[in-house]
Amino acid sequence: MRVVVIGQGMAASHLEVGLERLKRNEIPDYGVPLRDWIPVKYNEIEIVAAYDVDERKIGKSAYELAREYFNSSALPGSLKEIQVRRGIHLGSLKGLPFKARGLEEKLGLEKAIEVLVDEWRSFRADVFVNIMTTEPVEPVGDVNELETRVREGYLTASQAYAYAVALYARKVKPAVFINAIPSPIASDQAFIDLYKNSNAIVFGDDAATGATPLTADLLEHLYQRNRRVLDIAQFNIGGNTDFLALTEPERNIMKKKTKSSMVSDILGYEAPNYIRPTGYLEPIGDKKFVAMIIEYMSFGDFKDEIYVIMRVNDKPAITGVLIDLIRLGKMALEKKTYGTVYEVNAFYTKRPGPPGVKAISKVKAFYTLLDWLGIKDPRDIRSETR
Amino acid sequence: MRVVVIGQGMAASHLEVGLERLKRNEIPDYGVPLRDWIPVKYNEIEIVAAYDVDERKIGKSAYELAREYFNSSALPGSLKEIQVRRGIHLGSLKGLPFKARGLEEKLGLEKAIEVLVDEWRSFRADVFVNIMTTEPVEPVGDVNELETRVREGYLTASQAYAYAVALYARKVKPAVFINAIPSPIASDQAFIDLYKNSNAIVFGDDAATGATPLTADLLEHLYQRNRRVLDIAQFNIGGNTDFLALTEPERNIMKKKTKSSMVSDILGYEAPNYIRPTGYLEPIGDKKFVAMIIEYMSFGDFKDEIYVIMRVNDKPAITGVLIDLIRLGKMALEKKTYGTVYEVNAFYTKRPGPPGVKAISKVKAFYTLLDWLGIKDPRDIRSETR
Amino acid sequence: MRVVVIGQGMAASHLEVGLERLKRNEIPDYGVPLRDWIPVKYNEIEIVAAYDVDERKIGKSAYELAREYFNSSALPGSLKEIQVRRGIHLGSLKGLPFKARGLEEKLGLEKAIEVLVDEWRSFRADVFVNIMTTEPVEPVGDVNELETRVREGYLTASQAYAYAVALYARKVKPAVFINAIPSPIASDQAFIDLYKNSNAIVFGDDAATGATPLTADLLEHLYQRNRRVLDIAQFNIGGNTDFLALTEPERNIMKKKTKSSMVSDILGYEAPNYIRPTGYLEPIGDKKFVAMIIEYMSFGDFKDEIYVIMRVNDKPAITGVLIDLIRLGKMALEKKTYGTVYEVNAFYTKRPGPPGVKAISKVKAFYTLLDWLGIKDPRDIRSETR
Amino acid sequence: MRVVVIGQGMAASHLEVGLERLKRNEIPDYGVPLRDWIPVKYNEIEIVAAYDVDERKIGKSAYELAREYFNSSALPGSLKEIQVRRGIHLGSLKGLPFKARGLEEKLGLEKAIEVLVDEWRSFRADVFVNIMTTEPVEPVGDVNELETRVREGYLTASQAYAYAVALYARKVKPAVFINAIPSPIASDQAFIDLYKNSNAIVFGDDAATGATPLTADLLEHLYQRNRRVLDIAQFNIGGNTDFLALTEPERNIMKKKTKSSMVSDILGYEAPNYIRPTGYLEPIGDKKFVAMIIEYMSFGDFKDEIYVIMRVNDKPAITGVLIDLIRLGKMALEKKTYGTVYEVNAFYTKRPGPPGVKAISKVKAFYTLLDWLGIKDPRDIRSETR
Repeated sequence: MRVVVIGQGMAASHLEVGLERLKRNEIPDYGVPLRDWIPVKYNEIEIVAAYDVDERKIGKSAYELAREYFNSSALPGSLKEIQVRRGIHLGSLKGLPFKARGLEEKLGLEKAIEVLVDEWRSFRADVFVNIMTTEPVEPVGDVNELETRVREGYLTASQAYAYAVALYARKVKPAVFINAIPSPIASDQAFIDLYKNSNAIVFGDDAATGATPLTADLLEHLYQRNRRVLDIAQFNIGGNTDFLALTEPERNIMKKKTKSSMVSDILGYEAPNYIRPTGYLEPIGDKKFVAMIIEYMSFGDFKDEIYVIMRVNDKPAITGVLIDLIRLGKMALEKKTYGTVYEVNAFYTKRPGPPGVKAISKVKAFYTLLDWLGIKDPRDIRSETR
Repeated sequence: MRVVVIGQGMAASHLEVGLERLKRNEIPDYGVPLRDWIPVKYNEIEIVAAYDVDERKIGKSAYELAREYFNSSALPGSLKEIQVRRGIHLGSLKGLPFKARGLEEKLGLEKAIEVLVDEWRSFRADVFVNIMTTEPVEPVGDVNELETRVREGYLTASQAYAYAVALYARKVKPAVFINAIPSPIASDQAFIDLYKNSNAIVFGDDAATGATPLTADLLEHLYQRNRRVLDIAQFNIGGNTDFLALTEPERNIMKKKTKSSMVSDILGYEAPNYIRPTGYLEPIGDKKFVAMIIEYMSFGDFKDEIYVIMRVNDKPAITGVLIDLIRLGKMALEKKTYGTVYEVNAFYTKRPGPPGVKAISKVKAFYTLLDWLGIKDPRDIRSETR
Repeated sequence: MRVVVIGQGMAASHLEVGLERLKRNEIPDYGVPLRDWIPVKYNEIEIVAAYDVDERKIGKSAYELAREYFNSSALPGSLKEIQVRRGIHLGSLKGLPFKARGLEEKLGLEKAIEVLVDEWRSFRADVFVNIMTTEPVEPVGDVNELETRVREGYLTASQAYAYAVALYARKVKPAVFINAIPSPIASDQAFIDLYKNSNAIVFGDDAATGATPLTADLLEHLYQRNRRVLDIAQFNIGGNTDFLALTEPERNIMKKKTKSSMVSDILGYEAPNYIRPTGYLEPIGDKKFVAMIIEYMSFGDFKDEIYVIMRVNDKPAITGVLIDLIRLGKMALEKKTYGTVYEVNAFYTKRPGPPGVKAISKVKAFYTLLDWLGIKDPRDIRSETR
Repeated sequence: MRVVVIGQGMAASHLEVGLERLKRNEIPDYGVPLRDWIPVKYNEIEIVAAYDVDERKIGKSAYELAREYFNSSALPGSLKEIQVRRGIHLGSLKGLPFKARGLEEKLGLEKAIEVLVDEWRSFRADVFVNIMTTEPVEPVGDVNELETRVREGYLTASQAYAYAVALYARKVKPAVFINAIPSPIASDQAFIDLYKNSNAIVFGDDAATGATPLTADLLEHLYQRNRRVLDIAQFNIGGNTDFLALTEPERNIMKKKTKSSMVSDILGYEAPNYIRPTGYLEPIGDKKFVAMIIEYMSFGDFKDEIYVIMRVNDKPAITGVLIDLIRLGKMALEKKTYGTVYEVNAFYTKRPGPPGVKAISKVKAFYTLLDWLGIKDPRDIRSETR
């Protein structure tokens, strides 16, 4: 699997470093849900290129950029071979304190996309991982409208990349686009239709890490006991660039949307909730602080309360998810399930595509995924053969 | 369903009051997991008698005793018809500040059991709910050994009642024993064998409410992500008689045992843990305070932490569970699944019988239960027909 | 002490009901810091009028309005005599879902103020308690500028009331203005100067209840141990009108400002912080949810963490504070300490006036207050005479 | 200041390493309450010997033993000169999984004490820091009784050391005994009398770190607002040897006693509480987990709740306290305040001696200490000169 990374931020560094260390057995595979249960092995994955629009990053190697986050002694030398290339901007870093310039500014968007497809051909890329900064954007809905917007340059960076990957899949070889950010791609009918007809697969949207999957499972727990949820509030604050980006109301709203329907999908009714990234506090760093309250009615008109506090390393959590999604990309390509795969999205993302499907608790989604894979949880096999 | 309550404590009052109010539609059925999904309705249940050995309670009505916990305006008059009768003691309240005397002290145990069976015949009882105080006791293992102990009077109150119910089922009519306390009955091969041959069914052991099921589901959540649990500590403190009883080390050990194997059953490895009732603090009352820490390794050698604080009304939580177990008792009687029913125990109890089976997360057990019942979660039906 | 309430919201109802119940010995004086230590007794306080601009409230009695929050059985009949009168609006409810109209809309501001002073004369008022909704406003700074703004009608409702009280004090009798909201009055040099020359006293600004005083004392605790605070985040969410009002960014900024300098004042250095009302969630009601993290360096480069969760009844907390401030108003009038009294403000408010003074931890402010009062903590007297 | 360490455990290693690093300016003095405010500087302190009875430690250097806890790169070479010598056992490690033998087993206690005094003379020791494992023991009360027990060998290791220090002070030079563990020394009238007559000073008992001082200050916060505390529970669990030792009920009771009177001393009434070390969980290590609930009545019969979770590095916290106590030892020797010094004990210990005095909140004790020292908090000076 030859992988292209889109957005060379902290998450990219964690993926690049973690994957190499995993391949060298320097670290265990904790945090990788499917561990060694599937036939695709870690050392089948190779990252071949990374794209960004931040002038300070373009031209540097993944090795140089990872030094901001990792001790040199932990850095695999092979990262020196991954060069950061200029990608598409379309205003995706607007408002953030970075100097950014995209390929399209010189070439126009259509030409920029062509250039990318040519580069990817030379890399023989299979999987594209979108981990750029959260951008404000609505679904397009219709493939023709999408084509129009490409011509007019009226879309976001994620949409442009997703479009380019479809083009690449059609022209060069089948490919997978993993959309780990909130932009609606797998939940946009336009892209689902486009991908189906392009031998391409999209997984997404918004990789589920941190507090949201836990909240989903807590809600499932309450649902199963018929406890009536009165309210849910979930705050989270961190010090990485994501939280900085989310202090902008437009970007913040993207995160809120992702989570809003989950509550009613799982509970079966509307429960008042306040769930969203809450603030930026630099010294907290990547180990975000999450605080949650859930109040509910128990039997006999008695009220109970659950409070949860979490400290979660954000980027390591997403890395484990991405390593699975890349491997599942290979399996989906082999199965030729073009378009998207709900069974994958339901477990790994916050707003699973295709559009119109419901969120389910992660704990259920896990078994749905195993069914799709045709594998059994080894723990359950042990337990059955007792 | 004609129900006999064993142990007229706070849980009994909640069950008696709650059930009547539910039948009158004065309260919603929040906290009753199977709500209106099964054919057995709430008003098919009738509590016909209660047993205790506390001298202050014997001869009083459930109405009088409920006034300790409930406002008179919430008390159904029908509770005046439930009289508390003298039951079996066998030292079950030893060490607690109550004056207690059991039927067996005058009559001897075998005769006492006969008296009980006769009384139950007159009540035409179907289901027996054991909610007496936690008692220290080990499984017997073998039916012959059990018979010997009955003759010699060398068993605990719960064991004596469970034995009496088997006798009743054999002599009078098939019956169900719901063992909501930690004493091993459904996890004792002696009782499983006895019940199979007596047209009797036992559900148990130790009704799962409060923090333990939530811990099980949190562990499942971490297992599904291959996060490596380093340690778990769970404290809980309350002010009801249960917590008072559990300050005695012998009784406390019963609770610890119940929870000890759950961790490794769900995770698939041993994770160091400290999970047990921790103390008694009278003003906390029935709304216990639970504090928990779970530390685990995420991807890339990063450590995360989850802290949970819960305030849970203990007795209302168990009431919802008991109302389901009584109704499931009827269904099991109709299905003639004598012995015990793992599918029921796995969701509703902390140490599901029969002996030798593993704990599974509650979130999985829920679907196992629905399968056994042959019903589908209405939420999932809706979701499929979209 | 004849008291006029400005802003007949939930806080007003709590004050009106609580005070009457306290005078009748129906409730203990828990939550009133100075309890029976000072010579002014609870039954010296009488509430004589209330002002608001919400059309649904004007003309109603405090009794009628309190029924929204209290059970009738707890409501003192005497509240029927407190009528809600039309006061000054000046846009103070702008953006909130209430229909509001102020005296000044018909009469012009100067005339409206005259009308108020005349009404107050007829009530023989001594103390004015400002508990209206938080309004966005900056200090004026200079008395002449303040006079200009009165003439031009260019100020906020709180400023207009505060001005009117000064006029009343000069024309009728010395009076006290208790500013329990964030608007800078006691921290505005314009009002300090005006009050000094008007036989008037202002206490303020922003009554300290809930999480802020606790945060102050936690910071003092860390300061005293030379622990280096790395960061502080404090979230709070509630379901009363205050939280609804604070969802407007302009009003929210008022709260943030109040708290911003406290951290550095107490610690002696800038520690990154995020402390502000975070959201509105209706079912939480008045018992707000507060979540806090403090991270600090201990000896030897080790990092510790403190997490705090609070559930605090907002209005009861402020009521206890207001009852003290009213009584301290009488003492300050007797001492003729016109202008403001730092020793009172430092303990009871979040941003103590006069402008330029520093926040100190509440635990220190308490002893500063006792010194000003010339009384000793009875606990310490006992301890000394052992 | 020439310092002898009694008990070469983890706390000793932290003290030895931390002090050297502090003297070399490798770490800041965070966690040392009096920082650079007092005339005694860090590099006036020198640790000259350490005593233990664990056979694995005797004869080794502090350097070798510190390697269990610290990275070699952080270890000052000077620790190689501190040798661990055999001290007094008297059963202090009984029940713990260590092989221990004391000087007194061969020599008898009186002779062993003589040997120690002679060794200390050769070291020219000034200060003795007792940080051995918690031992179960009651106060002696009377000096004559103490002498009798020394003759008969009927006392604990801490008592024997404390006695030996008094002898040393009388025979060689004035000296200070810092009792950082719960054994009553500064709260035992026998030792107070002995020390007064021996030119010796004892500080103690039980160094206040972690959750107890914070609890004291939270209670003071509630007291100052007349909030009525209903109950307090405080759990803590850790993985260092202290927690292992405290799983023995006899040792645990020592900790509970220390904390029991604090609550009523500060609040002025008895509030039900459950405050004690709760368990041992090895992977938690030295960064203990503390969970706390405080429930109280606010104004108007409303109930509030505070929950606190702390992660505190235990040994670093005590190190900061010990560095101050050693320095204060020098100041007390200069002042010749033989016996004990309440003003020091009140801030730094959990059960301040002399016997009969009350606990006060730490936040008050801090100012009492500054008064005794005749210094002012620089923060307050700044604030006054504004």
